[in-house]
Amino acid sequence: MNYLKKVVLVIFCLQFSLFLAAQEHPNIMLTKAGIDNVRKGCTQYPLLQQSFAQVKDAADKAVEGKINIPVPKDGGGGPSHEQHKRNYQNVLACGVAYQISGDAKYASYVRDVLLGYAAQYEKWLVVHPKSKASNQAGRIFWQILNDCVWQVNVIQGYDMVYDAITPRDRKTIENKLFVPVLKFITENSKETFNRIHNHGTWAVAAVGLTGYVLNKPDYVEMALKGSDKSGKTGYLAQLDQLFSPDGYYTEGPYYQRYALLPFVIFAKAINQYQPERHIYEYRNKVLEKAINTSLQSTYSTGVFFPINDAIKDKTFESAELVYGVDLIYAEMGGKADLLDVAQKQGRVIVSDAGLKVAKDITEGKAKPFQYKSLIITDGAAGNEGGLAVLRSGSNNDQQCLVFKAASQGMGHGHFDRLNILYYDNGSEVFSDYGAARFINIESKNDGEYLPENKTWAKQTVAHNTLVVDKTSAFKANLNEAQSHYPEILYFKGDGEVQAVSAREDKAFPGVSMVRTSVLLHLPELTKALLVDVYKAESSAAHTYDLPFWYNGYVTDASFKINAFTDQLRPAGTKYGYEHLWMNSNDSVPGGSGYITVMNNKRFYTTHFAGGSVLNVKTVSLGANDPNYNLLNAKAFILSRSQSHDQTFISITESHGLVDAIAETTTGAKSTVSGLKVIKADRDGTSFSFEVQGKVYQLIMNYTDKNNFIQLIK
Amino acid sequence: MNYLKKVVLVIFCLQFSLFLAAQEHPNIMLTKAGIDNVRKGCTQYPLLQQSFAQVKDAADKAVEGKINIPVPKDGGGGPSHEQHKRNYQNVLACGVAYQISGDAKYASYVRDVLLGYAAQYEKWLVVHPKSKASNQAGRIFWQILNDCVWQVNVIQGYDMVYDAITPRDRKTIENKLFVPVLKFITENSKETFNRIHNHGTWAVAAVGLTGYVLNKPDYVEMALKGSDKSGKTGYLAQLDQLFSPDGYYTEGPYYQRYALLPFVIFAKAINQYQPERHIYEYRNKVLEKAINTSLQSTYSTGVFFPINDAIKDKTFESAELVYGVDLIYAEMGGKADLLDVAQKQGRVIVSDAGLKVAKDITEGKAKPFQYKSLIITDGAAGNEGGLAVLRSGSNNDQQCLVFKAASQGMGHGHFDRLNILYYDNGSEVFSDYGAARFINIESKNDGEYLPENKTWAKQTVAHNTLVVDKTSAFKANLNEAQSHYPEILYFKGDGEVQAVSAREDKAFPGVSMVRTSVLLHLPELTKALLVDVYKAESSAAHTYDLPFWYNGYVTDASFKINAFTDQLRPAGTKYGYEHLWMNSNDSVPGGSGYITVMNNKRFYTTHFAGGSVLNVKTVSLGANDPNYNLLNAKAFILSRSQSHDQTFISITESHGLVDAIAETTTGAKSTVSGLKVIKADRDGTSFSFEVQGKVYQLIMNYTDKNNFIQLIK
Repeated sequence: MNYLKKVVLVIFCLQFSLFLAAQEHPNIMLTKAGIDNVRKGCTQYPLLQQSFAQVKDAADKAVEGKINIPVPKDGGGGPSHEQHKRNYQNVLACGVAYQISGDAKYASYVRDVLLGYAAQYEKWLVVHPKSKASNQAGRIFWQILNDCVWQVNVIQGYDMVYDAITPRDRKTIENKLFVPVLKFITENSKETFNRIHNHGTWAVAAVGLTGYVLNKPDYVEMALKGSDKSGKTGYLAQLDQLFSPDGYYTEGPYYQRYALLPFVIFAKAINQYQPERHIYEYRNKVLEKAINTSLQSTYSTGVFFPINDAIKDKTFESAELVYGVDLIYAEMGGKADLLDVAQKQGRVIVSDAGLKVAKDITEGKAKPFQYKSLIITDGAAGNEGGLAVLRSGSNNDQQCLVFKAASQGMGHGHFDRLNILYYDNGSEVFSDYGAARFINIESKNDGEYLPENKTWAKQTVAHNTLVVDKTSAFKANLNEAQSHYPEILYFKGDGEVQAVSAREDKAFPGVSMVRTSVLLHLPELTKALLVDVYKAESSAAHTYDLPFWYNGYVTDASFKINAFTDQLRPAGTKYGYEHLWMNSNDSVPGGSGYITVMNNKRFYTTHFAGGSVLNVKTVSLGANDPNYNLLNAKAFILSRSQSHDQTFISITESHGLVDAIAETTTGAKSTVSGLKVIKADRDGTSFSFEVQGKVYQLIMNYTDKNNFIQLIK
Repeated sequence: MNYLKKVVLVIFCLQFSLFLAAQEHPNIMLTKAGIDNVRKGCTQYPLLQQSFAQVKDAADKAVEGKINIPVPKDGGGGPSHEQHKRNYQNVLACGVAYQISGDAKYASYVRDVLLGYAAQYEKWLVVHPKSKASNQAGRIFWQILNDCVWQVNVIQGYDMVYDAITPRDRKTIENKLFVPVLKFITENSKETFNRIHNHGTWAVAAVGLTGYVLNKPDYVEMALKGSDKSGKTGYLAQLDQLFSPDGYYTEGPYYQRYALLPFVIFAKAINQYQPERHIYEYRNKVLEKAINTSLQSTYSTGVFFPINDAIKDKTFESAELVYGVDLIYAEMGGKADLLDVAQKQGRVIVSDAGLKVAKDITEGKAKPFQYKSLIITDGAAGNEGGLAVLRSGSNNDQQCLVFKAASQGMGHGHFDRLNILYYDNGSEVFSDYGAARFINIESKNDGEYLPENKTWAKQTVAHNTLVVDKTSAFKANLNEAQSHYPEILYFKGDGEVQAVSAREDKAFPGVSMVRTSVLLHLPELTKALLVDVYKAESSAAHTYDLPFWYNGYVTDASFKINAFTDQLRPAGTKYGYEHLWMNSNDSVPGGSGYITVMNNKRFYTTHFAGGSVLNVKTVSLGANDPNYNLLNAKAFILSRSQSHDQTFISITESHGLVDAIAETTTGAKSTVSGLKVIKADRDGTSFSFEVQGKVYQLIMNYTDKNNFIQLIK
């Protein structure tokens, strides 16, 4: 024991001394060593120049305005919430403005704001009045998460004006604000601080950054290894457990993006203060992989794939990815195609890293971002399914299929096993609703998730995947869902037959499901065909619904759609069906046909075959929505009842062009025809179809991984 | 009589000789005199260079392809329809390509296509098999209109390759194709040819242009003055009657744009062949006014106001306005702000006029297009109401109110007296459905107007204007509507109170309606308020519905909206109500309140007051639509039943910002409050409201045109 104590003490002192050696300010995104070059760069390189102009503009508005530090009161989006948010943004902006311009007014502003908080912080309630769960309560905001975000920003601002503040004021700020904040996070919010979860990441980053800047190695150690310093929790454990070996974050791209920022900023700080930790190399460069995976989790418009609880329209332009892209490019050997992303982001972080990005863009080094077809494994060990992405075409007109065979993704996960999303022509073709939430809009449930997030958005029928007996996967039970994940059967990301296949046997008791989705390139067609085969096996009879959530308008179908004209009724009573108005329900003769949708000036014809007694239903979202919480959405559903084994085959062709300006339409008819099922059993599926008169056959062998798919011409 | 005959003969000969003098080719958009400069310009000025590259690209594709002249068979959008359309586009493109490049292959292509038509034309049915009314039947297309469009294009192509074709081939083409076409239009389609209507314009332009190019003055004379040459019909009569003195075309902006092209091209030809006619000066420069009015009939995004039967998304980028802008700029003394429009169009006509536009843009002469607040009178004498447009803000973030107090607009008119459209932030806030039509999409009623155009789109309730007793204005009777027009009471297009007011007494028997709409600029607000006062008077009791067709989502309201949860029913049985699903119907305590809509990242709060027993209904489009012909649309309706005199007052504030990337929301709450009616009787309306604590009062005196509106601060 004595020996061990000594070792610990020695290590501790070693770290402490290293800290002292590095204890200069600023030393995170902007560094004392780099500041002269960044200052020069702000006049030389347009992107850095513009980025600094924006920061300075924000800083100027801040210093011209009145400092306002309201008593915490409102929920998300409310006045006090937004004011505290503005305050941390202002502190950060003024910190940067001070470093670049040297103008003392910015430093004074930061000082005055922080003294203002220091004068009040300890008087505020320990549990914010709008908090919804006391173990997640913040003090400045309604949840601790936002307090941590606040601290991550504010401590950077403080670091940048540190040298301009008197020791006396620093003492007040540190003792009356930052130390109480550290205590609040590590003690009152100990549970969050020790969570392996994105809230935990913000917490450890807040504490770790503050520990470095205030030279409190004990807090840094807690941030890295958990409050008991055992390493079971904390930053390193989060890097180990929250990301798959491919850098996938189990909650999905929306939360991955959100989680990245504290990971990245804290990594940068660790690298500045303790380069010997080689944090960028940690776990086979998992941080770099996470940033790259985040970028690959976007469509070519930059929009993140909105699986799980995602706010749609979120793109890689968001601040987290600006940090991420700048840092991997500048410090982790990122490639020149990242400069393309940086250009689309339209800004860089005013920092050493941003300087390099802006300089290299100015020097013409940017290359188009390389979107890839790839499979991103899920699970800490990479064996809990994954997210597959198939792509075809240029970044200007890309076809992209997302196939979700990942694990549940914790509390923000949706019950959407084997879901697909499909994009083309810069638009969603088959879409995912994302989360039911008007973020930051106070009149809508304080900007929080709406009740319909649970009753609708998470349910299986809200997705483009199979629903058995009008229930949801795992009966929408999170614990059950969390303990199973799909099996990837096949993936091929190149060649004329790009494909992914996965199996899910646990989502619906007694039903084994295999889905195989293909981007098929044929010489007759400029765009690939989306071929999708969804097979379910069961010894019992079931009702199978396969929805396609489409955008645009139905312009044609092989069968007569008889829309209900004088009354609409919900399509069911639970598992999300209660939110669907049933618009039509038609039996399709022979069980095969097509439906054509016009969307963003292009046509999408889905040819389908599903057995002899197939029905096609159309539905629209909005039933049982007394508070108008749901957005517009429409689906057609391939439906079969009283079936044991069931295979739905579909081929979606992207075709034609509507030129609204010239008022011309070309290619409104699909050139695919004659979809015929040859075999559909447990071992395999094969079918034929014609393209412009030429017959093709696709054969899928579910039992032969080496010869999984064959195209016969 | 003898004397008169002689005069006529002299005039005729005079004209004939003038023709001969000018008989050189080409001589319409491209001229023999200008061709050298245009050729040079195609290498000097980027916009002309790109424009020619596009034309040449189309021409190259044409000459590389196989000539295909199908027997006329299909309706709009069908294969033979689209092929004949492509043929005329190819002939025109190859004509231009020949003139600029001098490469004989283009001329040969035009010759071969025209010989191909010449070999077949007279064998084709005189009434196209898909024609819907024999007096409007085409021969190449399903309606004569398209035949005329075909001829307007083809004759220009012919003019450009004239000198490269042998006299023998010319003879074949002229005698077997163009002369029969001239006869078909002037004889078989005499009714269309003599109509004062946009179809008539295409007919006279086709005949007139062909008359000039073929040196057949008799046809030119018929084109100018009608088939009896009396001047009662024909081009000049159309210029007299189809446009108001302000250059407004009574069918509305969508058809105005469409009608413009033949007017403009024929005017250019007249000016080339018979400059002594001073056609550009005709009727106080009505043609120039028509083009300017057309541009002023767009929102700042370039989209035409979609009143009447309009296809939405149509912008000033359409070909007609490219011709229009190039010609008024180059030949009618147009101002430098037209170059801004030309830049947005992204092309010029490869012509003398296009050369000047491209040159001046290259030389940096462009200025931002000057959108104006203005009233555009309707009616040949300018006394049949008009279209008022109020605008505020820059072209990047413009508020724009369109107030339709125009006359019915003939068969394409909607029953939408005193309708308003409102735009802000590049988006429609209160929108017009436009036409119910999937243009050129064959599977949707052959691309023609859908039945719902009549049952829905034309009906009053489809618009943002008052509906009395759930009927439509004039009970949707065209003849009745056509014989009345509203009276403009007031217009002011500048200052802090921009306003328009109009009266309509005939739309609903026994009900006198006055609507007054205001863009109100207050010092507390950066954006103007839209203030709208709709007053109806009647000695009998009526039900009054005032719909606001909004885009986006309701995020807040002062009252509880109780959306129907488990069943939807149509809101009525006729006059368009049968197409509305009733989503909610709530009584609003005190008859006043607000409703907030989030649309394109901004909030729109409409404060309203309408008497003590007001209901607010919400509706969505789609009932009684068995064939899925209707698009999504949503409205809230201010509704009052059993009321004699009724005044609806509303104030719509544009406020706040949702930043989806940064996930921040500001200004989600309206800063307007306390709307109080002080007086609402037949002579006037006055009311007060607060903005950020400051009380304002607006007083409207309907009887005092000199003191119509007062703002009291």
